[in-house]
Amino acid sequence: MVKYVYLFEEGNAAMKDLLGGKGANLAEMTNIGLPVPPGFIVTTDTCNEFSAAGHQFPFGMEDQVRENIAILERRLGRVFGHEDNPLLVSVRSGAPVSMPGMMDTVLNLGLNDRTMEGLARSTGDERFALDCYRRFIHMFGDVVMGVEHYHFESILQTQKDRSRVRFDNELTAADWAEVINRYKTLIQDETGRSFPQEPFEQLFMAIYAVFNSWNNDRAITYRKINKISDTLGTAVNVQTMVFGNMGNDSGSGVAFTRNPSTGEHKVYGEYLINAQGEDVVAGTRTPLPIDALAKDLPAVYEEFTRVCRLLDQHYRNMQDIEFTIERGKLYILQTRNGKRTVNAAVRIAVEMVEEGLITREEAMLRVEPEQLDHLLHKRIDPNAKLDVIATGLPASPGSASGEAVFDADLAEKLANEGQKVLLVRTETTPDDIHGIVAAQGVLTSRGGMTSHAAVVARGMGKPCVCGAESVKIDLEARLLRVGDITVRQGETISIDGTTGRVILGEVPMLDPELSPAFLQLLDWADDLRTLGVRANADTPEDTAKARSFGAEGIGLCRTEHMFMGQNRLPVVQRMILAETPEDKLEALAELLPMQQADFYGIFKAMEGLPVCIRLLDPPLHEFLPNAEELAVEITRLKLTGGAKAEIQAKEDILRKVRSLSEFNPMLGLRGCRLGITFIDVYRMQVRAIFNATSELIREGCSVIPEVEIPLVIDVKEFDYLKEMIDDVAREVRTETGVEAPYTVGTMIELPRAALLAGEIAASAEFFSFGTNDLTQTTLGFSRDDAEGKFLHHYLNLKLLPDNPFVVLDRKGVGKLIEMGIESGRATRPDLLVGICGEHGGEPSSIEFCHQVGMNYVSCSPYRVPIARLAAAQARVINDRLVKKDYGTK
Amino acid sequence: MVKYVYLFEEGNAAMKDLLGGKGANLAEMTNIGLPVPPGFIVTTDTCNEFSAAGHQFPFGMEDQVRENIAILERRLGRVFGHEDNPLLVSVRSGAPVSMPGMMDTVLNLGLNDRTMEGLARSTGDERFALDCYRRFIHMFGDVVMGVEHYHFESILQTQKDRSRVRFDNELTAADWAEVINRYKTLIQDETGRSFPQEPFEQLFMAIYAVFNSWNNDRAITYRKINKISDTLGTAVNVQTMVFGNMGNDSGSGVAFTRNPSTGEHKVYGEYLINAQGEDVVAGTRTPLPIDALAKDLPAVYEEFTRVCRLLDQHYRNMQDIEFTIERGKLYILQTRNGKRTVNAAVRIAVEMVEEGLITREEAMLRVEPEQLDHLLHKRIDPNAKLDVIATGLPASPGSASGEAVFDADLAEKLANEGQKVLLVRTETTPDDIHGIVAAQGVLTSRGGMTSHAAVVARGMGKPCVCGAESVKIDLEARLLRVGDITVRQGETISIDGTTGRVILGEVPMLDPELSPAFLQLLDWADDLRTLGVRANADTPEDTAKARSFGAEGIGLCRTEHMFMGQNRLPVVQRMILAETPEDKLEALAELLPMQQADFYGIFKAMEGLPVCIRLLDPPLHEFLPNAEELAVEITRLKLTGGAKAEIQAKEDILRKVRSLSEFNPMLGLRGCRLGITFIDVYRMQVRAIFNATSELIREGCSVIPEVEIPLVIDVKEFDYLKEMIDDVAREVRTETGVEAPYTVGTMIELPRAALLAGEIAASAEFFSFGTNDLTQTTLGFSRDDAEGKFLHHYLNLKLLPDNPFVVLDRKGVGKLIEMGIESGRATRPDLLVGICGEHGGEPSSIEFCHQVGMNYVSCSPYRVPIARLAAAQARVINDRLVKKDYGTK
Repeated sequence: MVKYVYLFEEGNAAMKDLLGGKGANLAEMTNIGLPVPPGFIVTTDTCNEFSAAGHQFPFGMEDQVRENIAILERRLGRVFGHEDNPLLVSVRSGAPVSMPGMMDTVLNLGLNDRTMEGLARSTGDERFALDCYRRFIHMFGDVVMGVEHYHFESILQTQKDRSRVRFDNELTAADWAEVINRYKTLIQDETGRSFPQEPFEQLFMAIYAVFNSWNNDRAITYRKINKISDTLGTAVNVQTMVFGNMGNDSGSGVAFTRNPSTGEHKVYGEYLINAQGEDVVAGTRTPLPIDALAKDLPAVYEEFTRVCRLLDQHYRNMQDIEFTIERGKLYILQTRNGKRTVNAAVRIAVEMVEEGLITREEAMLRVEPEQLDHLLHKRIDPNAKLDVIATGLPASPGSASGEAVFDADLAEKLANEGQKVLLVRTETTPDDIHGIVAAQGVLTSRGGMTSHAAVVARGMGKPCVCGAESVKIDLEARLLRVGDITVRQGETISIDGTTGRVILGEVPMLDPELSPAFLQLLDWADDLRTLGVRANADTPEDTAKARSFGAEGIGLCRTEHMFMGQNRLPVVQRMILAETPEDKLEALAELLPMQQADFYGIFKAMEGLPVCIRLLDPPLHEFLPNAEELAVEITRLKLTGGAKAEIQAKEDILRKVRSLSEFNPMLGLRGCRLGITFIDVYRMQVRAIFNATSELIREGCSVIPEVEIPLVIDVKEFDYLKEMIDDVAREVRTETGVEAPYTVGTMIELPRAALLAGEIAASAEFFSFGTNDLTQTTLGFSRDDAEGKFLHHYLNLKLLPDNPFVVLDRKGVGKLIEMGIESGRATRPDLLVGICGEHGGEPSSIEFCHQVGMNYVSCSPYRVPIARLAAAQARVINDRLVKKDYGTK
Repeated sequence: MVKYVYLFEEGNAAMKDLLGGKGANLAEMTNIGLPVPPGFIVTTDTCNEFSAAGHQFPFGMEDQVRENIAILERRLGRVFGHEDNPLLVSVRSGAPVSMPGMMDTVLNLGLNDRTMEGLARSTGDERFALDCYRRFIHMFGDVVMGVEHYHFESILQTQKDRSRVRFDNELTAADWAEVINRYKTLIQDETGRSFPQEPFEQLFMAIYAVFNSWNNDRAITYRKINKISDTLGTAVNVQTMVFGNMGNDSGSGVAFTRNPSTGEHKVYGEYLINAQGEDVVAGTRTPLPIDALAKDLPAVYEEFTRVCRLLDQHYRNMQDIEFTIERGKLYILQTRNGKRTVNAAVRIAVEMVEEGLITREEAMLRVEPEQLDHLLHKRIDPNAKLDVIATGLPASPGSASGEAVFDADLAEKLANEGQKVLLVRTETTPDDIHGIVAAQGVLTSRGGMTSHAAVVARGMGKPCVCGAESVKIDLEARLLRVGDITVRQGETISIDGTTGRVILGEVPMLDPELSPAFLQLLDWADDLRTLGVRANADTPEDTAKARSFGAEGIGLCRTEHMFMGQNRLPVVQRMILAETPEDKLEALAELLPMQQADFYGIFKAMEGLPVCIRLLDPPLHEFLPNAEELAVEITRLKLTGGAKAEIQAKEDILRKVRSLSEFNPMLGLRGCRLGITFIDVYRMQVRAIFNATSELIREGCSVIPEVEIPLVIDVKEFDYLKEMIDDVAREVRTETGVEAPYTVGTMIELPRAALLAGEIAASAEFFSFGTNDLTQTTLGFSRDDAEGKFLHHYLNLKLLPDNPFVVLDRKGVGKLIEMGIESGRATRPDLLVGICGEHGGEPSSIEFCHQVGMNYVSCSPYRVPIARLAAAQARVINDRLVKKDYGTK
């Protein structure tokens, strides 16, 4: 005979597949001796047989249910359907994985016209018994018999109107009796069937409804989306009722075994005397803190704290517990891992290691790396009431408030005067850099996650919201509009770069906090992880910050950001616009000491650790003004009698801008193509690197420069530039007499580079996967265009599982990376391999990087702690997989 | 003893590696009994031993040379260095592959002060002997002793000045004697060494110089660039001299065994009596046609025609022959495969098959497919004198002359009045389509090979030169300038779209000619090839033309070109600018019958053959006006008091244009992303396809539509759209009752699609590799930007072997194609695979397509014949490789 039904005593936590998650937990608690109201579970296999048989209970199941009810009756001394001493039960669904869309709970099952009276008699409280009964009819009618909820609500409201009362608890026993009659009539009218009085009929109808709900539309859709197998099935939990509203020695509450907000190891929760669970959450009465129970019911309190300790230790995780006290006796109704703040998660994980409950490896898996981000930036007080007026892209995390300012010069001026300003622009250009530096944060109405504003702000660790398209900016009138709201210059607004929210007025902020537990956790992470963590940083300040966050080097130093400095840009523009080679070289000579000083500072801040410097990458026109604005300005000047010389000068610039403009700049004259076409620019940069290196070595500093050639598609490009780099290195050695080490490597950021990695690795000493660009070209997605125009639509339609610019696309981009590493290492076994795209700071992508055997990931300074934890997680998870593969589990 | 030296009799044509190309041919001719002046060859192995030994002749070589000279002496009855009857020889280098940069020829070696006199005596012509001697000293001094050429020239010029004559042949014997003395002094002064008098010293110095020249800089560089192994070495050919200038029974000439211009099977050439070979090409005397020899020297003529027949048949190819007649005896000095026009190549190949000389397979390899292009377009008379003023990109082949017209409306008007016009624009937009239709050809100053003008012109088979950047166009003044040349509207210019030349005035053109031989060759090609050939065509006219050129279906029908028609564009713009869904649907409803009529015409023209229709691909803003021009126009209107309504309307359009504009349109909202975002547009197109299909089937026509979804990266996108396509098909079937066949497939044009081809093939019934886009994304090259900005530089530096948009990049793009086909066919073994990028019409890319097992290539109608021949070549070459692999050769 197949066993369809298990008493709680017969199961345990490991039997989730058969008993469902909830049932397995109830069984586990029962077996470790906790006071759980007795009950039993109809298995998930029963559900599957039921489905397979065309919605019929398998033969024998009903008998087993009856036998188990009989066991409960004997144990509790109550009888199912007995008019004096009725046994009441709850019926709940419980699949192996948590699944919304399944049938709700039915409480108080077993009540009927007669047992209700028995309950009234045995409790001496008729109103209580009637209240239980009307709740049961409502729940049963709704979830089992399919009569819609609002019908019941409407009858209840009518009754309250009639009795001229406002709250349910003001209704009298007579009122409830009236409601119950109307409910029964409703059910008869709606279903053509009377409300069942026979308790077993009630019970089998409820089980039937739970099994059926496994195949309702919502559940099927949910499983499809979440890739849950249809053959898991659901279990049914049948548990005897206990009541917290049986007088002042009864009560209900919820509690956590530790503080879910701070992580402090102390029971935290609240309860109500003479109340049911739903009253605690309803908020009509104010619950008391759990400590008060020590005075109210000292013995129960002591028992409860003992249970909490036991559960915390048994599950080796903070538990979220529901309990009821019936006439001085404590019952535990549910326990599960509790939700917590990231702060609490960190502290609990660390303290549990110290308490010997979990290993360091397990501690790694207790904190969501992504959440660490909240601890590193100012954030909006979660309790603050916000006036959110728009939402853009969360381009750079953290929050900022300040006076809205619509041009960079004014932003700088006001900031120098001590004002807090927020720079608001349609989109930013290199001309705005000093404004971004001066501002608390940046808001733009156009551009995506890789727009100028986003990239610069992330580099500086400044909050930024981009592409907030509903924000209409009028630069001339110096104001912004959202619908009928207008914000003028000088009025305060706030942005939340973590969520993309734009908020009216100033908002209260919380400062970042790096607790000792946080530092401890990351320390352990460093011991566990095999993947290195570097940072992307372009300035000595960012480099120092990255190092303070634990970066083990610079994985990407973007030299173009240095070109955008306020005092550099005019020289850079002069270099680009130069009409003769001499003028160009003169401008480059002027840039050399500036770049050299940059590198000096960065190398010094990363002393003893590697610094990977990427030679100039972006198209040159990014350093020049916008063609359309120039054309409009020229037209204006011509029509308003502007000075001939000025018009001529602007036309000259426009011609140059046009000649440099490209249809698809992403795929144009940039990266090493720039270096090959205008080799003097690269030569100047390389010279600056080696000059700075020699200077520092002479000063006794240890410097490890890695020179990186971007956008390579063929080893010939690499060799062509490497020759120049080696030449310059020799020159500097001859001039200075300093023997400086360096390596030369490349970005792998185009599909062809990944496909030809074997050839490229013959010359390149390291690879850094530039997954931003590799994603753009592999998928043919321009990030700036995709995020604004169609990616959203794709994610809604589930055509892609994730935004591929956030979570690395393993199937496409990942395949190229695997091929690239494999063929690169086949040529050069000690090839150093890293990643410097934004995926390098995203946990699931970091896991991938670990799996494919990269040496390091590199990410923005603020994401370094996240990456350290994620790298440790990847190691722990991967080692488990490996063990599993070897069958040792 | 190693054999270093081979008599001509000891070698044959197969010994190229050992004897060099020239030597092997001389040996071959000697052995088939042709009158070749006797001689011998020092082997390439000798050269290698020489190099390996640090530039020393291997032991024994010199003796072997002396022995072979002795053999020549015995055979000719002359003696090397004999003062009465001297043996004279020529010395030439001859590597296994033809190689410029190697040492030149030395003639008359063996002359010295005494033998010169002997030569004078034996010929009775002192001036002749002196002339030979001074030539020898000059050549020897230059190429063997390294005295630069201009020194000799200057001495000669001085002598002519002194003797007050203009031509060499006016100098007297005394003059030559004087020149010879000065030459000897020159050599002594320049080298510190006297001119060697000993013939064997001369000979070994010459051999030494030939071997040395194998390792001179020019030769090394040439080998490096052309990937020729350094270890091939060069041979040295030593051949007895014969003289065509020994009286009226002597002469020299060159001839072809067939007419190299027309291919006619008749000896073709010219000769001079009493002249040396160099006199024939020098042009100071006018040579006679070869037929005249029949009268001058009938016996020699008969012998010569016999030799020609023999060589033509022996080499089974048209030969280019050099000959000399010395005192009535014919000598053949050289034979090689002759250069010919494509017309001649085709005729010779076909006639040689008919004559039983070669197989059809061999005939395939005798014609360069690319050259067939010349036969299909009007071309500029190669004898015309041209005033080329600029060169742009050869965007669409063929030539055209016409009045320069700078706007499309006027072009249309003038064309309607019967004028021939040439449309000249900075760049073209969809607004110019009617002008392109009306014009003979198109010239633009901006844009690359895939610019609008280029794509449209190629589609129409109209000549086009793009991106001629030195042409400055002033649209307002209606003129163009190149340097100080100005062409005003109405003045005639010409373009050559095959070479990119822009020419002043009208030029004489030759009409295309499709000879019977041409048709015969292609007919055989069709029998041989296994690769299908389809065409890219967007109109019924192009479809008909493609079919007439032998296309076996349409591989790519671009529906967007239909959107650009003059009467369509306003509706398309209305559709795009629509503010409400209703307006959009209304515009689409208006487009439906137009598209349906297009498809009807195309299907009908391709009756019985497959037609692959790609759904809308380009970004929508391509159909809208330019933002910058709009912005300038609005500014102008505002400042000059333009009507408010007009300004408002333009601002509305500008806003829409801006909202659709993209940073990298190549990687933006286009292809199936458009279809997914605005599904009604695709639905209209699919409806038009199926409506047209049903209509034709009802009329009894056979229609094979293939619906193609562009720019797919994931099977989910494909499935999403396929569902809609199947829905529409069902609707049409229900409405019409017609059961119409169709297949649905996809372009593979992004790396991710190639990487995930296995998944995509589960749903897609065919793949068409869009190698234009696949090249752009795999290499990260925007074609429009790369060709104008850096690709040229890359090709000059040899960083890439070819323009990857012309010749398929096998290493990168090709690898993805191979992976795509392999994994696609693993899922669906009968997957139909083709290519529709421009590579589909390029012979070496077609070879690749054959090798990787595609079913067909598709190219523009005018390239269909090229593709047919190239496909046959690929088959022939590939089968040979296969045979070679099996060792049967």
